[in-house]
Amino acid sequence: MTPVVTLLSDFGYQDTYVGVMKGVILQRCPSARLIDLTHAIAPQNLVAARFHLLSAYAYFARGTIHLAVVDPGVGSQRRAVAVQFDQGYLVGPDNGIFSGVLQACSPIAAVELSNPDYWLSPQPSQTFHGRDIFAPAAAHLATGELLSDLGPAIDVQTLAKLPVPNPERSPSLLTGTLQHIDHFGNLITDLPGYWVEGRNWQVAIADKTIPSVSTYSDIDLGQLAACIGSHGWVEIIINGGSAWEHLRLRTGSSVEIRLS
Amino acid sequence: MTPVVTLLSDFGYQDTYVGVMKGVILQRCPSARLIDLTHAIAPQNLVAARFHLLSAYAYFARGTIHLAVVDPGVGSQRRAVAVQFDQGYLVGPDNGIFSGVLQACSPIAAVELSNPDYWLSPQPSQTFHGRDIFAPAAAHLATGELLSDLGPAIDVQTLAKLPVPNPERSPSLLTGTLQHIDHFGNLITDLPGYWVEGRNWQVAIADKTIPSVSTYSDIDLGQLAACIGSHGWVEIIINGGSAWEHLRLRTGSSVEIRLS
Amino acid sequence: MTPVVTLLSDFGYQDTYVGVMKGVILQRCPSARLIDLTHAIAPQNLVAARFHLLSAYAYFARGTIHLAVVDPGVGSQRRAVAVQFDQGYLVGPDNGIFSGVLQACSPIAAVELSNPDYWLSPQPSQTFHGRDIFAPAAAHLATGELLSDLGPAIDVQTLAKLPVPNPERSPSLLTGTLQHIDHFGNLITDLPGYWVEGRNWQVAIADKTIPSVSTYSDIDLGQLAACIGSHGWVEIIINGGSAWEHLRLRTGSSVEIRLS
Repeated sequence: MTPVVTLLSDFGYQDTYVGVMKGVILQRCPSARLIDLTHAIAPQNLVAARFHLLSAYAYFARGTIHLAVVDPGVGSQRRAVAVQFDQGYLVGPDNGIFSGVLQACSPIAAVELSNPDYWLSPQPSQTFHGRDIFAPAAAHLATGELLSDLGPAIDVQTLAKLPVPNPERSPSLLTGTLQHIDHFGNLITDLPGYWVEGRNWQVAIADKTIPSVSTYSDIDLGQLAACIGSHGWVEIIINGGSAWEHLRLRTGSSVEIRLS
Repeated sequence: MTPVVTLLSDFGYQDTYVGVMKGVILQRCPSARLIDLTHAIAPQNLVAARFHLLSAYAYFARGTIHLAVVDPGVGSQRRAVAVQFDQGYLVGPDNGIFSGVLQACSPIAAVELSNPDYWLSPQPSQTFHGRDIFAPAAAHLATGELLSDLGPAIDVQTLAKLPVPNPERSPSLLTGTLQHIDHFGNLITDLPGYWVEGRNWQVAIADKTIPSVSTYSDIDLGQLAACIGSHGWVEIIINGGSAWEHLRLRTGSSVEIRLS
Repeated sequence: MTPVVTLLSDFGYQDTYVGVMKGVILQRCPSARLIDLTHAIAPQNLVAARFHLLSAYAYFARGTIHLAVVDPGVGSQRRAVAVQFDQGYLVGPDNGIFSGVLQACSPIAAVELSNPDYWLSPQPSQTFHGRDIFAPAAAHLATGELLSDLGPAIDVQTLAKLPVPNPERSPSLLTGTLQHIDHFGNLITDLPGYWVEGRNWQVAIADKTIPSVSTYSDIDLGQLAACIGSHGWVEIIINGGSAWEHLRLRTGSSVEIRLS
């Protein structure tokens, strides 16, 4: 078995923070395969971390360990946790970044990472638990050792949830928000694609009405359209361009879909 | 054998698209070694993708699989292909991004990736074939399985070529264009270094005449010069600075070399 | 044994230079584990390269090979070297980028990489020794072969040192400089944390007096404070923000700590 550990953080690419976490993991589990999800999350943006984990987890093998460190509360009383779920493990701060995955996929067990035997050193820093607590815990799980070694069990019902808006649905109208704007400027809503499948639909956003299509090449270059994106959510796109540059909307903006 | 799969795309680093492709590959070929070439290609810039693949492929072991996804035609009728060549395999859209490599190194065989048994699921998305078609195909080749499993053979003569300009050569004059501007601001022409080797030469570009040197340290700090770059093409450099910041030229600009 | 090779450079992420070095390493040592420290060092910034290597090396297993290429003197008479130290190996240009690590951890042996049998080809480029000389040398060490194969021994006392300022210490006053500004905008001084441990202290910088705290959550959102950072140096932070955006200081700025 080749254990896979994914890494996600807001550490960026200009420092050695991510590399250092990888060094710590490889010291404890030399065979671990380390895959970066992204480290370009805006500093301390928990909502974005939740979105990216939710978008990515399903594409990894069962048993994969997802190490995620977006951690504005480092050094405070927020808990450090590892959570077992059907597809693998989640390791990081208990601040809601895992709540998207755990809404899609129920947690099986969780522990607080309070056993200092599995920390990098008995006195972890107050500012970099990614290196000192989370990376060693991820490595421990990657070696196939027990979740319960890492600390006492905690009630999975007490794991933090992020207060993200819930999209709403009536027979002719869906209402939601933009949950992410990607590198291409695609505007990704929180409206699930299966809510529109088989229907005629169009998007209403920022005083514009936008037609639905199957893919980029169904529209002329430079035209706005909406489709079911690869994440599974409805997204607003421009063929050959950036819908964000055209619409200049922010994450959290309201969006409606009219069904007919 | 440890199969190597390289990845190149215009997906950037802020989303999880690249990580997701890696998850898909590792599920099918857990021993694959995954090496990023770059994911910072400007969105849908086929010429840049062609350049980077051509610059990099020769430094990888025979049998390496190069997965490249710069794919403005995703969801259209453009073909999804895998190509075998002397050094390994190319997997991605048939839109010309492989045409530089295949001009340097003839194709041996090619298939269209139309066998759904080797897709991620029977219904691939219309917008992310990197994940749904190309990554599984690359993983299949990485496991050592047959190219012909992936779909019907196609005539390698029909593989798409990009209409890049051809540099020209007379006994005293070479004419070409800038094909890339790198991270350091070096201006990389499409004039091969062996055209100037053993000659006296100077570059004429944008009303400037620029002397040739062997390396950075042959010139004073801040001086413009031209040399045979590490890619093998003539490039314009500044010792300790960015030639691009000085000259502000674009990819595609004309360049001449006078030989004497 | 799974040899780990770390990579650090100023090559950025938009070209294939880093990927090409990895291809060269894997051709010679297919089992090497390749870990990026960072490739976002500002072009030719030796001081930053020294800082990042010093910050990272201690978190890797004994025997790790650190390949670092920030190399403004490429093609000049500056030496190409490999250095053995207590924790592993350093491979790159002899221009002082290793002097932080080697001040913390004495060198055991060093060689000049002048044996062409271990170059990529007998005629290396004049501009990319990372690919042509350093990557093959790192791969050779990763296979467990001898340092002495790579070239003649050199006196470790002659290895280049960077002229970085030395912080100073009196019973009531520490004086130093900012040595790094990280992705979060934390201002990292060159004053070691153990100089303030167990004392009451405050930072004086740019006409401001800044209180010391243990961690982010000890201060209100938006407040400036100083703490012992995860690197082990005193750093200036803002809870939930960027100290750099607030203070707009540069690397090299003077900083004082008053002890009481």
